Amino acid sequence: MIHVQSDIGRKQDDACDSTTGLGVPRWLSRVCTTVEEGGVFPVSDVTVETSKPPIDIAAGIPDPTQLAYRQMRQAISQVLCDTSRAFSALSYGDPLGELSLREWVAGFRNVDVDSVIITNGAMEAIFLSAIATLDPGDTVIVEHRSFPQAARIFSRLGMRLRSVPLTPQGVDIEALNRLLESQRVGGNRIKAIYTIPNFQNPTGISASADTNRKLLELAEHHGIAVIADDPYHDLWFSQPPAEFPGEYRGTSGSPLLEIGSFSKWLGPGLRVGWLIADPAAVRKIAGYRLGVDGGPATLTQYALSQVLQGSWGNQWLAAERRFYAEKAKALLETLQCRLGEDIDVLPPQGGYFLWARLPEWFNSSAASVRRALAIQGINPVWGNVFTSPSEIDAGQPDDDARHCMRLSFAHVSKNRLEQVADRLRDALDEVRPSH
Amino acid sequence: MIHVQSDIGRKQDDACDSTTGLGVPRWLSRVCTTVEEGGVFPVSDVTVETSKPPIDIAAGIPDPTQLAYRQMRQAISQVLCDTSRAFSALSYGDPLGELSLREWVAGFRNVDVDSVIITNGAMEAIFLSAIATLDPGDTVIVEHRSFPQAARIFSRLGMRLRSVPLTPQGVDIEALNRLLESQRVGGNRIKAIYTIPNFQNPTGISASADTNRKLLELAEHHGIAVIADDPYHDLWFSQPPAEFPGEYRGTSGSPLLEIGSFSKWLGPGLRVGWLIADPAAVRKIAGYRLGVDGGPATLTQYALSQVLQGSWGNQWLAAERRFYAEKAKALLETLQCRLGEDIDVLPPQGGYFLWARLPEWFNSSAASVRRALAIQGINPVWGNVFTSPSEIDAGQPDDDARHCMRLSFAHVSKNRLEQVADRLRDALDEVRPSH
Repeated sequence: MIHVQSDIGRKQDDACDSTTGLGVPRWLSRVCTTVEEGGVFPVSDVTVETSKPPIDIAAGIPDPTQLAYRQMRQAISQVLCDTSRAFSALSYGDPLGELSLREWVAGFRNVDVDSVIITNGAMEAIFLSAIATLDPGDTVIVEHRSFPQAARIFSRLGMRLRSVPLTPQGVDIEALNRLLESQRVGGNRIKAIYTIPNFQNPTGISASADTNRKLLELAEHHGIAVIADDPYHDLWFSQPPAEFPGEYRGTSGSPLLEIGSFSKWLGPGLRVGWLIADPAAVRKIAGYRLGVDGGPATLTQYALSQVLQGSWGNQWLAAERRFYAEKAKALLETLQCRLGEDIDVLPPQGGYFLWARLPEWFNSSAASVRRALAIQGINPVWGNVFTSPSEIDAGQPDDDARHCMRLSFAHVSKNRLEQVADRLRDALDEVRPSH
Repeated sequence: MIHVQSDIGRKQDDACDSTTGLGVPRWLSRVCTTVEEGGVFPVSDVTVETSKPPIDIAAGIPDPTQLAYRQMRQAISQVLCDTSRAFSALSYGDPLGELSLREWVAGFRNVDVDSVIITNGAMEAIFLSAIATLDPGDTVIVEHRSFPQAARIFSRLGMRLRSVPLTPQGVDIEALNRLLESQRVGGNRIKAIYTIPNFQNPTGISASADTNRKLLELAEHHGIAVIADDPYHDLWFSQPPAEFPGEYRGTSGSPLLEIGSFSKWLGPGLRVGWLIADPAAVRKIAGYRLGVDGGPATLTQYALSQVLQGSWGNQWLAAERRFYAEKAKALLETLQCRLGEDIDVLPPQGGYFLWARLPEWFNSSAASVRRALAIQGINPVWGNVFTSPSEIDAGQPDDDARHCMRLSFAHVSKNRLEQVADRLRDALDEVRPSH
């Protein structure tokens, strides 16, 4: 008797197999990442006894005090009490997303409503952008360094990854041009670039207006798509980030796909994000999802549309910006004050994260360092985690980021955030070379 | 200058291309169904002037009077007022789904909680079941006739379709056995069967306990998975449907994947369904979605978990069953009374639909018939719509269902439902042959 389980099991166990018997890639297996893999970031290999309560500086999730519980509750109440909307809010939704919410996004991001599709968070937007612009075997360029979960989505869909360096002004345009030109010689298989244009994860870099324009001109010239994942766009601290040039934003024939999200300022549990692109591409992408998941909950879309009526959204965002700016400042200042020359920090301009460079001897390769951090109850994400899989596959060393780390100031309270610098200093002192 | 749009456009326009330059299938294109395609069912080609207000008997959506607006509103209010849950409900969820909701489903469907994963409606469950059990090029068997959207998901993922007949007791086990045996000779590429075991869409057939057992034994013997899409399971009218044998339900090594949903009795806009399978498969499937959409809204899962506390769910369902049973009876009796020998109806035992056979001259091929229905403002779904794509591809005629139709009694009011028979009779009289 043959158990199908053995079949199912085998299918995922050899997920890296290149082909099935038919000579086609086992992309289906590659879509998967098992729960056992532990999500986006590796779990520490160190277990220690410590009296210090852990402080979570890894997670990219909002501060629990900063979500609009009351307003969301009232909005849902209004929607479900309104006989003209209650049934629609609990019924099947438009595959493009709820029109009133698309209209809000269009106004908010200054594009035409036809270029907006609502997605099941930014994640579905990345997935849909990938299947809209790439086939298995195609190459997608990711920034060095980048959000590993996105690279994993591309990789598991059977796409190949190449990386391009970042400059303080965003993607290194010269390096990108060389990469694209070199590919043209041997038949251009590069079909897209995945970029995080603002408050980049993990480096904190934001692209300049000049970089944005050159990136799109280069993409247009080489016929590749630009998948711009921009979930932190609206959480800027002192000034709004540079926009992509208007003629590329949601316009017919544009190579640009812009991804945004409500997750970072109104809660990821709503599962609502958006994608702005060429209206023709948007209509086709709406069709894709009918073969995948049907799209995000209609109810949470209606709730957002209700809560965002009038100027509430911009007022709320303004308060969020001040709040996270203050937390970023608190972490930055205590780190600089307590760690002095041991730390080199890029002051965050927005978003959730701070990128720091520590002394070379304080790096992720040293078990003593990992142990010292565990004793201090802090969990910075090491820089080398943000390497693209293609480089790991190529066996390239990634030593230049082993003493860098990403610290999230988003989730923990300001009070506890101010303890991070002391704990990090104690960890440094614990393993500091004596000479 | 090369516009990427032309690239994107080309990609979908040649969606039926078999291969890319690399010799791999263009499955990505095949995932899609464009919005222009018009969703699940074809739109009538007839436009007429009519004084009769349309009565929607096509849609498989709930009666607007039957959703738990107040209870959902209160449940969400309770969740968002509860400091121990409010943040979790708006944050990233467990990829397996919220534990308390999984526990409710496990109790409700009498399986172990480890075998339950919450999905973004039944649709994501079909998609995830497909990628868990099939590779592109593999064959999946669908019932003749079946839900066309499911067949489309398989087809667009690059899977091949074969069909197996239905008997009044469910899948024709003898025919299935012959199909599986014949495939074994030439190398068995059949990897799964997709079945709608209860109140089958469109035929209304429910599988007997004997068929369920034989189907699983056969599947186990041949090493194929059984994807059982059962969204109407709980909306039975006089008696609960037969269950699959307990030893196959959510157990280790079982070939069975059972799909359920809250959509049909608590609202599809929540986007919450479930999948029950081998716990090892469930854990792996939870990983897949991290590369797709991240899963359904955390908030609607918490709301359902709250609203279903205690015995409320079963009480609500009991009322729903009575309500839809009455509507089914109203439609059935008026049809039989007004159409007499012109109609042959299978009395619905549950679910949303009634399957009827009309005289052969009253069929979907005749423009006069389609016109007569349009004048009457009713939109039954013709039986031939429920043909599997493989049969259409093979050019097989499907004349035996051209004079059959599926009528939904779910969405329209009982009052208007009672007008359907008169209108259908008038349409019949309009085109009735004179001899």
